[in-house]
Amino acid sequence: MANHFARRTNLIKASEIREILKVTERPEVISFAGGLPAPELFPVEEMKAVCEAVLNEDGRRALQYSTTEGYQPLRELVANRMKQAGIDATDNNILIVTGSQQGLDLTGKVFLDEDDVVICESPTYLAAINAFKTYLPKFVEIAMDDQGMIMAELEAALKKNRKAKFIYTVPDFQNPTGRTMSVDRRKKLIELANQYDLLILEDNPYGELRFAGDKVPPVKSFDTEGRVIYQSTFSKVLTPGVRVGWLCASPDILQKYVIFKQSADLHTNTLAQMQVTKFIELYDLEVHIERIRKVYKLRRDLMIEAIKTEFPHGVKYTQPAGGLFLWVELPVWMNAREVLVRCLDNNVAFVPGGAFFPNGGNENTLRLNFSNMSEERIVEGIGRIGRLIKSMIHDKNRQ
Amino acid sequence: MANHFARRTNLIKASEIREILKVTERPEVISFAGGLPAPELFPVEEMKAVCEAVLNEDGRRALQYSTTEGYQPLRELVANRMKQAGIDATDNNILIVTGSQQGLDLTGKVFLDEDDVVICESPTYLAAINAFKTYLPKFVEIAMDDQGMIMAELEAALKKNRKAKFIYTVPDFQNPTGRTMSVDRRKKLIELANQYDLLILEDNPYGELRFAGDKVPPVKSFDTEGRVIYQSTFSKVLTPGVRVGWLCASPDILQKYVIFKQSADLHTNTLAQMQVTKFIELYDLEVHIERIRKVYKLRRDLMIEAIKTEFPHGVKYTQPAGGLFLWVELPVWMNAREVLVRCLDNNVAFVPGGAFFPNGGNENTLRLNFSNMSEERIVEGIGRIGRLIKSMIHDKNRQ
Repeated sequence: MANHFARRTNLIKASEIREILKVTERPEVISFAGGLPAPELFPVEEMKAVCEAVLNEDGRRALQYSTTEGYQPLRELVANRMKQAGIDATDNNILIVTGSQQGLDLTGKVFLDEDDVVICESPTYLAAINAFKTYLPKFVEIAMDDQGMIMAELEAALKKNRKAKFIYTVPDFQNPTGRTMSVDRRKKLIELANQYDLLILEDNPYGELRFAGDKVPPVKSFDTEGRVIYQSTFSKVLTPGVRVGWLCASPDILQKYVIFKQSADLHTNTLAQMQVTKFIELYDLEVHIERIRKVYKLRRDLMIEAIKTEFPHGVKYTQPAGGLFLWVELPVWMNAREVLVRCLDNNVAFVPGGAFFPNGGNENTLRLNFSNMSEERIVEGIGRIGRLIKSMIHDKNRQ
Repeated sequence: MANHFARRTNLIKASEIREILKVTERPEVISFAGGLPAPELFPVEEMKAVCEAVLNEDGRRALQYSTTEGYQPLRELVANRMKQAGIDATDNNILIVTGSQQGLDLTGKVFLDEDDVVICESPTYLAAINAFKTYLPKFVEIAMDDQGMIMAELEAALKKNRKAKFIYTVPDFQNPTGRTMSVDRRKKLIELANQYDLLILEDNPYGELRFAGDKVPPVKSFDTEGRVIYQSTFSKVLTPGVRVGWLCASPDILQKYVIFKQSADLHTNTLAQMQVTKFIELYDLEVHIERIRKVYKLRRDLMIEAIKTEFPHGVKYTQPAGGLFLWVELPVWMNAREVLVRCLDNNVAFVPGGAFFPNGGNENTLRLNFSNMSEERIVEGIGRIGRLIKSMIHDKNRQ
């Protein structure tokens, strides 16, 4: 049937990470590969109470079709959360989506013609690369340091790429590096977007999971021309299984998203939207997030401690102030895919970093997730990876 | 921001039906416009028990990310339902999607390049037109009679359109006409697809809602070359709010859908998939569907009776043996959009039929939904529409 597929279909490949993640489902594998929240922190009992309350109070509505824009009380509640984060928003600025992954796909659909340029951090979120690739753009990667995207590099790229449509950024505890963009760079980013007439997609799933340092205002809080499309999700602060995320943008932009969302899935699960709303009404989401922060901080601290002890000299790593991930750079001659093969033999997994660079290269990098494994497994797993890296370095030196 | 949008975005318009449906949310409006199931038949109490059971038994899993292909027990259960319908399937043939609307969008993504031809019934399902339009195809409409698509017309169209990618059909109680394709034509459809090397998307959300006559086997049951992609949903037989549908196709085709589904929303709501599975384990879905059939049959009968009495001579209408809709043809000089304007002034609504023809025309047609209004409101609403049509005919004759 290959001759029936669209060109985009013949160009796209299955994510190798997907295949890796399948292996890591075996319980004996210590996996730092996925981006899964800690399930032991899910509010299962509370969700039971929430489901019951929603179905008792408005069951027929919860099970019926609903509007594409989203459940009105949830839109209002999200608009309030946006205001608390320093973003001027009302319900008209909010579109509820089926996880923020849908926001990525819809952004590609709304904006990208073939060969348009997407500007992104280097490295950037793998599933965003894949979502945008559906629409056959080119990617221009902007080098990062510990303050995020380097603005001089961005400016040089904008001068060269007049077909750039938008800048994609994960400014808080970035996936995959864990880095956070500084306030000054956020302001500069807006300045450049205004100057070069570009949009910005600010993807912020992890922002509320800060466990060190001061909060940094969202890029969108500096936006004066309606150029920033902000998206976030309840996946990391409540539960990913229910697939409830949101976009916050100008109504004239959202109107286009609504048309494509209607074609994509009509609307997001009504019951799920009402569950999230009811959870926030009945419980204190901030208290819940604080619990998550404490656990993730402990795990990050342990992972960094273990890396310091177990990884050989010459391996670099980030020390994120929040989120779920940290980033490792091995000696340049090493290939993280080869390291992974050996690690899987030893029942420990991570994601090789090359996949996070849309234009390839950087095979000496890898991403480690610290949210999903117990403290004991973190120490054990990092120890195993460290020993394997050391033995590969040892082998190389003997050659 | 119009210069930032993709070409597809500037070409697509908001559905006018959407705007109409907003008006019909007012409780005083008797609406035959939407395609909503009867909410009084939703198993609210059962869904409460189901939510509790799922969260008790496997709460962390229900709230966690899950695989793109779908919740394994649900895939198996759906494969069994497919077998009962005469389709040879295992779990490897099943992909769970976020409502069958997602199946339409993914089908467009997987197969359609710009200017490819989609063959469809004339008229056809509005939201399928919109989903496919995202990928900028051309539509070739095939005239129907009461046996469905006319095969001689289809064959003529296939001879002319060598860029045709697939045939889209709703063979059972079609939306919008309520018509069902005969067995002979289903066999002929497969024969032509084989001969002209085409795929078929068989969209069957209403097939289980038959309340008269004998079951007709799905088109896919006659498929010997893996050409039919079959899709259906739990929306019309259980609840649409949870957005759980499925595709049934060859694994080599589904593999492409999986890649794009992962980019579109990662996976369908885990809790929702487990809820549907648990409902079918704990309750008798067939008994539930039988209840729906009885109510819809009564409503259809009443609507047809009222049309016979209230609509003037010269108005044609279909008499569907199942589903949610019937189709009305007014005298050719009448415009159903004008009729609708008058109807809305009288608090009664329907969908003008022109929107169901991807290439336009046929403004003298309209779609009536009979599943969502009470018996009293059906009689009252059809009476109002009938009186307005009569008065418009009267005015015309006086000119």
